[in-house]
Amino acid sequence: MSKKIKLTIEYDGTNYGGWQVQPNAVTIQEKIEHAIFKATGENIRICGAGRTDAGVHALGQVAHFETESNIETDRIKHAVNAYLNEDIRIKKSEQVDDDFHARYDAVGKTYRYSIYNDRIKPALLRNVVHTVYEKLDIDKMKKASKHYIGKHDFSAFCSSGADVEDKERQIYDVRIKEDLPLIEIEFEGSGFLYNMVRIMTGTLISVGRGAIEPIEIYDIVKSKDRGRAAATAPAKGLCLLNVKYPS
Amino acid sequence: MSKKIKLTIEYDGTNYGGWQVQPNAVTIQEKIEHAIFKATGENIRICGAGRTDAGVHALGQVAHFETESNIETDRIKHAVNAYLNEDIRIKKSEQVDDDFHARYDAVGKTYRYSIYNDRIKPALLRNVVHTVYEKLDIDKMKKASKHYIGKHDFSAFCSSGADVEDKERQIYDVRIKEDLPLIEIEFEGSGFLYNMVRIMTGTLISVGRGAIEPIEIYDIVKSKDRGRAAATAPAKGLCLLNVKYPS
Repeated sequence: MSKKIKLTIEYDGTNYGGWQVQPNAVTIQEKIEHAIFKATGENIRICGAGRTDAGVHALGQVAHFETESNIETDRIKHAVNAYLNEDIRIKKSEQVDDDFHARYDAVGKTYRYSIYNDRIKPALLRNVVHTVYEKLDIDKMKKASKHYIGKHDFSAFCSSGADVEDKERQIYDVRIKEDLPLIEIEFEGSGFLYNMVRIMTGTLISVGRGAIEPIEIYDIVKSKDRGRAAATAPAKGLCLLNVKYPS
Repeated sequence: MSKKIKLTIEYDGTNYGGWQVQPNAVTIQEKIEHAIFKATGENIRICGAGRTDAGVHALGQVAHFETESNIETDRIKHAVNAYLNEDIRIKKSEQVDDDFHARYDAVGKTYRYSIYNDRIKPALLRNVVHTVYEKLDIDKMKKASKHYIGKHDFSAFCSSGADVEDKERQIYDVRIKEDLPLIEIEFEGSGFLYNMVRIMTGTLISVGRGAIEPIEIYDIVKSKDRGRAAATAPAKGLCLLNVKYPS
């Protein structure tokens, strides 16, 4: 009897070439598949809710797979963790309906981008923040962030090479929390295009520096022109917080 | 013309054999001394406010040294950082009076001990927290922590091998903050004996587990008997937050 398992996964992406299995890079997905093989003897492919790029972290990535294993569902997380490095941890293992799909069923995702606004990089947070030396105007960034909220064609915030046709996405909320020198921006949306959170963040940083006025974000969204938005912020500041499914 | 410089230093202690220069281990102190040599050409010894053990971190360690260098005082931090790995950062460089001494002039220190209270270790915080699997009773830990506050002979909370005679220290405050699964305990005191914070923490963990009642902490302090307190908590959960000097 096979059962379908949903995994909730935390990882420090620093030492990996991203989520998805690929040649010439060690990836999170392949490490988990290998650990499942060691734990169950099954050579299976897992399906993640979304890819994360090299260096991007996750507190709540989700993946599913089918197994014939008779390991008790809740024990699967421990069995798999036993064969993983400490920078990848299965936080939960739950049985789900046979038709559950980690990617197609996802109705929302929340990402956090962490900026360290100081003249000196931090030693302890060095792998999980992007340091910006120039003093940022957070009030301006907050104003600007409001223009992202809503249903828009986010072509201006999508790296070329993305293969999706429909670039309309809905942003439910953008929250900017300050505990200086740390600035955390949370993006909650229906889904995100390739590099979308990092380009939205890079553009908010330009606003914070005074290079772009908050109101211009409205025009940049409307323009659908990638050339109008600012540079993609570095991967290491990004963390996938959670993936939402219909309850 | 020589000038005396006070450094404020942040470090991730994971990959070091502690603060103090010693044979057979790479230490924070030697890395900073080497970086100062590269930046100024001077082969000097720096003096830290206190040693931290292998694996212990710092957000605000303090050290002093004398220099003949004509690098502008505020630029010294950048000049030295240029020769340090990213897990050690000089946050401030300031000129101080010639009689300033980082260790003898210190009138207080604050340490933070971070506990992750969950069945699964965290991937992202793995090097800066100690994971406790059993559910801890935080109210009991808070009650117990009150018995540390005040001026006491802390012999019961000092590892053998310590070479100090006077084991009286004053604890000004112990604050326990919860953001579960994270529990952070801040200890503010006049000074701390060898392993004192880690033994105080280990004993609070025993209280949280129910192995020791809060009121017993009072007796354990009074006993001056190391055998009565619980095991030393692991180094990696400990962080030196700041060192206080008379203003």
